[in-house]
Amino acid sequence: MPRWEHGSQDRLKQAAMELFEEQGFQDTTAVEIAKRARVTTRTFFRYFSDKQEILFADAEQLRAALAQNILDAADVAEPLHTVTRALAEFDWERLGSREAQRRRQAMIASNPGLLERDLIKQHQMADEFCDALQQRGVESDVAELAAHVGTYVFRMSYRQWLAADVDSADLAAIVDTVMSTLARIFPARPSTAMS
Amino acid sequence: MPRWEHGSQDRLKQAAMELFEEQGFQDTTAVEIAKRARVTTRTFFRYFSDKQEILFADAEQLRAALAQNILDAADVAEPLHTVTRALAEFDWERLGSREAQRRRQAMIASNPGLLERDLIKQHQMADEFCDALQQRGVESDVAELAAHVGTYVFRMSYRQWLAADVDSADLAAIVDTVMSTLARIFPARPSTAMS
Repeated sequence: MPRWEHGSQDRLKQAAMELFEEQGFQDTTAVEIAKRARVTTRTFFRYFSDKQEILFADAEQLRAALAQNILDAADVAEPLHTVTRALAEFDWERLGSREAQRRRQAMIASNPGLLERDLIKQHQMADEFCDALQQRGVESDVAELAAHVGTYVFRMSYRQWLAADVDSADLAAIVDTVMSTLARIFPARPSTAMS
Repeated sequence: MPRWEHGSQDRLKQAAMELFEEQGFQDTTAVEIAKRARVTTRTFFRYFSDKQEILFADAEQLRAALAQNILDAADVAEPLHTVTRALAEFDWERLGSREAQRRRQAMIASNPGLLERDLIKQHQMADEFCDALQQRGVESDVAELAAHVGTYVFRMSYRQWLAADVDSADLAAIVDTVMSTLARIFPARPSTAMS
């Protein structure tokens, strides 16, 4: 638990989350975060361009890791499943406890600026999945739909996972349920009947 | 074509589009737009909070009109189709010629700030469709998926429509093609087999 040993970046993240919760995101400054983390303001800006970025610090690495999962996937014959599987099988606890992730999401949801940045990060993530699928030989329209629909399915599942009452809630199982809901709204089409 | 008679707001829109194309979006100021439209800067700000908003001036009315289409739809038994149909059947020429819409899209695509605003407007539109579907009695998970997946399908189709070589390109036909692609990536699932 004590993260003080983990270097300046981790200390800054921890200090920021504490301050955001104690006094609100809006009222917290970079200077205060640096002070709480016992680093200089200059060090703060070496790691983060602004306080918003602290909440999305893991997004870049996450995006790269997930795109790699798609590049390494055993099978891309069902690209929508390749995407949702890459997302569901990721070890989300690496980003902190479910409780910590829940607090982060609540903070994002309460601030329009953060919500916008979250949307954009997600869109960029889907674009990167689309590229990865195309590198695996999936045609562009199929790759784009699979990447964006898959990312949305995941976003919805992730939100439900965070909201679940029990700590044992299984993200992969929730993704399966959302995929079944998607199957239900997708009516039988001539092209499906032919396959 | 001459829109000078249509009042200050239309004159401002027209003047802005001309200036954005002549000298670039970034280098155009509200003062210049007002001058070209022969209105005061104060009039500019009565209609638009900033120059970005000019490019999204129709979004609000569009969103309301489309949500109303969903509320009035004959049938919501296939909510994904209700959404894509509402979008495809809208008279897009009301927003200007295809050429004008194409120029607008190119401008948005070339500016990260505009692209972000576009993403957000689209997300808000999908949320409104979700509300409309729920008002029609569709359960919340189904409504959310149908609204967001449908909006993405449309976004992709709209982009292809703008990019099409021929002026006779039919948006509704393109939406059908994208829906068929979606059907292809959606593998046969147990729940589908049972229906």
